Order: sequence, then C-alpha cells, then structure tokens
Amino acid sequence: MFTGLSAFPLTPLRDDQVDLAAYTRLIDRLGAAEVGSIGALGSTGSYAYLDRDERRAVAAATVEHAGHVPVLIGIGALRASQVRALAADAQEVGADAVLLAPVSYQELTEDDVAGLYEDVTAELSVPLVVYDNPGTTHFTFSLDLYAHIASLPHVEGIKIPPTAGSVEEVRERIQAIRAVIPEHVRLGISGDGFAATGLLAGCDAWFSSLGGILPQAMAAIARPALAGEEESALAGSERLRPVWELIAEFGSLRVAAAMAGHLELVQEPCLPRPLLGLTGSDRDRVRAVVEELGLRD
Amino acid sequence: MFTGLSAFPLTPLRDDQVDLAAYTRLIDRLGAAEVGSIGALGSTGSYAYLDRDERRAVAAATVEHAGHVPVLIGIGALRASQVRALAADAQEVGADAVLLAPVSYQELTEDDVAGLYEDVTAELSVPLVVYDNPGTTHFTFSLDLYAHIASLPHVEGIKIPPTAGSVEEVRERIQAIRAVIPEHVRLGISGDGFAATGLLAGCDAWFSSLGGILPQAMAAIARPALAGEEESALAGSERLRPVWELIAEFGSLRVAAAMAGHLELVQEPCLPRPLLGLTGSDRDRVRAVVEELGLRD
Repeated sequence: MFTGLSAFPLTPLRDDQVDLAAYTRLIDRLGAAEVGSIGALGSTGSYAYLDRDERRAVAAATVEHAGHVPVLIGIGALRASQVRALAADAQEVGADAVLLAPVSYQELTEDDVAGLYEDVTAELSVPLVVYDNPGTTHFTFSLDLYAHIASLPHVEGIKIPPTAGSVEEVRERIQAIRAVIPEHVRLGISGDGFAATGLLAGCDAWFSSLGGILPQAMAAIARPALAGEEESALAGSERLRPVWELIAEFGSLRVAAAMAGHLELVQEPCLPRPLLGLTGSDRDRVRAVVEELGLRD
Repeated sequence: MFTGLSAFPLTPLRDDQVDLAAYTRLIDRLGAAEVGSIGALGSTGSYAYLDRDERRAVAAATVEHAGHVPVLIGIGALRASQVRALAADAQEVGADAVLLAPVSYQELTEDDVAGLYEDVTAELSVPLVVYDNPGTTHFTFSLDLYAHIASLPHVEGIKIPPTAGSVEEVRERIQAIRAVIPEHVRLGISGDGFAATGLLAGCDAWFSSLGGILPQAMAAIARPALAGEEESALAGSERLRPVWELIAEFGSLRVAAAMAGHLELVQEPCLPRPLLGLTGSDRDRVRAVVEELGLRD
C-alpha cells in the first residue's frame, strides 16, 4: 500500500462548506488513473482547517469513491484526544491506513511527540504512516525519534520531507534512516519537485500534492523513477521545473488549487479562509505553465 | 483597559477536561490582585487546543469571576469562520475585548492576514487586540501590515513579541511602530523577561504569562516600570533572571504550569496532551527557583 504514487487531493470548499460533489469527482479521477494510493485529508486536503464532522464526511466519501485504490486518511490535530477520535472515525469509515503529523502550536518536545505516537498506535487496528512535515508542523524529527516511533505497533511508513541534493546525496540520507528503522517500514518522499530524486535514491513511495490534481503527469515521473531509469525520470522532472518553481514560491496547496480551478475541477475560491487563492498575475503564471507544459492529464 | 499588567492565566485540564474549579480559583486570585486586565484563552490559556464549547465555558467563567477587572478573550483559530464564531461567543458571554493571533498551518501571506482582520473586525462590537506571537503562529507582521490592521475599526491594541535590547534600543522599535499606527492604539509587550524594558521603552501594557500565576510578583516589576523608575524596574526584573532562564529553556507555558502545580493552584498534569509537563530534574529546578526567590505571591 505504501509504494508508488500516493495522490493527495485537495478538499475544495465552497462558501465555507466542503464541496463534496467536486471532491468526489477528484477521487473518481484518481481511481480511474489507478494511483498507488490516495492520501485524503493531507496538508493539501486542508485537514487542519476542518472540523471532526467534515473530516469524517470527507474520509467516508474517499473510501466510497476510491474503488480498489487503498485510502490513507490524515488524522493530525493539536490535541491528542482529538487525534484519537479522528483515528477512530477514519477506521470506522473504512480507511486502509492513517497518516499522522505532529501538529503544533506550542513547540513540541521529542517526548511529547513520542507520547503522541505511543498513545495513538496503542489503540489502532490499521497501519499508520508518520507524517514528517516540518514546513507546517515546525517540528523536526531526529533519527532517534524516527527509530523509536518506527518500532511502535502499526507503524508501517514514514513520509519524509523534501530532500535536496543529487541522487547519491539523497541515497545517503535514505540509508541513514533505513539503518535505524525496522525493515518493513516504508519510506515515502514528499515535495513533488524532489520526488524523482527521492524515488531513485531508494524511497518506496511518493506522497504527491499535485498527484491529487495531475495524477497522470506525476505518474509519468514516478514510473521511470521506480524502475530505476534515472535519465528518463530526471528529465521528466526537469521538464516540470516551472511547476516546481511555482510551488517554491506559493506553496503546493495554492498551486494545486489554482491548477484545479484552471482545469475546472473545482470552483474557486476553494481554500479555507483566511487562505486566499492565487489571483492576478500569480494566477496567470499558473495558467501559462499548465498550458505551456500541456498539463491536462 | 489595555494598560498596565494584563495577566494571562492557564486553562488547566484534568483527564482531558477543562478543570473549571481550578480555573475559576485562578481568576478569583487575579481579581483579588487587581491586575489591569485578564487575558483568558491566550497562548498560556491553551486556546488553540480547546474546542468551541470549552472555550465558551472558559470565557463565561472568566467574565463571571473577574469582578470589575476587564476581560480579554483569545479568539484565534485556523479558519476564519471559526474565528468569527469564537468572536460572537466571546461577545455573548460579556468579554470586554478580544485578542486575535493569525494562527497558521499553511504559511500565511500578508493578504491572508489582512483579510482575516478585515473580516473579523467588520462584525465586531468590542475592541480587538492584535496578537503578534511569531513563536507560535510562525507569522511575522511587517510595519505596513501593523499600519493597515491598526487602522481597522475596533482595533485598539497590539501585543508585540518579546523585544531584546536596552531601553533605548527597544524605544526605537516602539517609536517605529507608533509612527505608523493611529494614536489611540495601545502597545503591549510580551515575554515576561522583556517586560521591564518594554514598559520603560514606552509600551502601555504588559501581556504576562506568569502574571496569571504570580500576579503580585509581576506587578512588583510593572509598577516601577510604568512609573518610569528605571533602576528599580530593571533591578526587579534582574532579580527574577532565573525565572526568565527557565522560560527561555522550557517555554512560558510549561514553566507556568509547573509553578502552578508547585503552588498547588492546579493539579498536575494540567496541559493538553501531547504537551507534557516538566518532570524530574526540570521540575526540581522550577521548584528550587520558586522557593529561592520566594515567589509565593
């Protein structure tokens, strides 16, 4: 389940309500594209902004529309009791796995984070992926903490942050992590512009934000990368450099939302306020990149 | 209302429920100490971890027990619609003012934050204090953004972050802010170890985390500082250097919780999990500092 392309769809809002009709169309599209898995309610799915009822409805709709594609559900929240409730909800609606980031307001210590994963995994009956996303959680995992958490029951994957460098350099980082975690725990790269390198360097999976909107375009990079075809994978990723530059400037959520709007997959604005969508010349740049690169899927 | 010592109490939890009995004892204590105002559900009050019902109950209990002391209620949340609901709740239970931080998960732009304050102030009928707390929100206000937001209706104060430096250096920063905001908007310093300097440098108020637990000890610094008695204020703050060092190391929330536990004002653990209280030798250091400095209030 934690191999290949894992597509992370947006959760579009309309008038501050989850637009379930648009959302299920996104999921149907991912099912048809036969992605390796669907990561619903990830950072791109705005999980942190939604309440428990909304998250349960989105999780249920994902499972219902994903067909045979495995579904991971994000269960992160600030308070441990909220996380446990969300884990129970995700399992009840039939999630194949859950994804947990150590969301913070007050700075978290390693002991806080270890305790959170201990508490949550103690009650779990599906696999858990550790969601290491320092850009949004402002928490940095040490190798020691990876080692401790990866040894907990039900932990079967770690979603690692974007890792810059050559394939060789990233391979060193991957090997350093693998050296401290059990063999069965899978590693997934995130940061779409770093995915080709990450997969070539030995990651098992790619947790992809744009994969939620452009599954075919991302699969076209994932396929050669997973097959070890270095030249082809890197060339495919290099071709999308203008996309990676947009993400570096605006963040993947706003770029995914603008692309989805341009492709008429969602109605804009679709982000939870106060987050504003891209407008004016920023929006024009996204449109131009989509058109110039022929990113219609 | 936005002058002098504003005390920010903990919201103690017990078995993952708000311990309203302990909380109201804290508020009664602040009322008796005649602090300038009470800042309920601030960062020290763990607002970000509590749900809407819990926050409404805490806000109502604060107003009920504060006597004639003005009450500010924190209304921050990730989603603008949540903030607006919390603002309505705070006003319904009788808050004298609200306090709003731009809480983030996805990185916020200046436009996002401006829009948030515009939306919220448009519906407000009590004063609003801008809560600039980059340590928890990871958002940094520019002077231009201060200027824009401070000119919105109902905005009557800005809680600025800890500002290091001599009185002269901090005065320059305060004057730079004052130069761009309307004259009626008050400035409050935060970061208890920076408060004497901040007040001497021209801040109107001190938004104090430890003031929620040790109002007399903090008032003993605030009083000379507000009177411009530089030597006495700085000496009073210097005397508490071991406290400021604990805060620098563990954060004010964990230090306030450990002090409150040691003084038997709350039952430990009292923080929302995954946040763990201080234990072992860390806890011993807090106890030793409280005893050595005679911080019993």
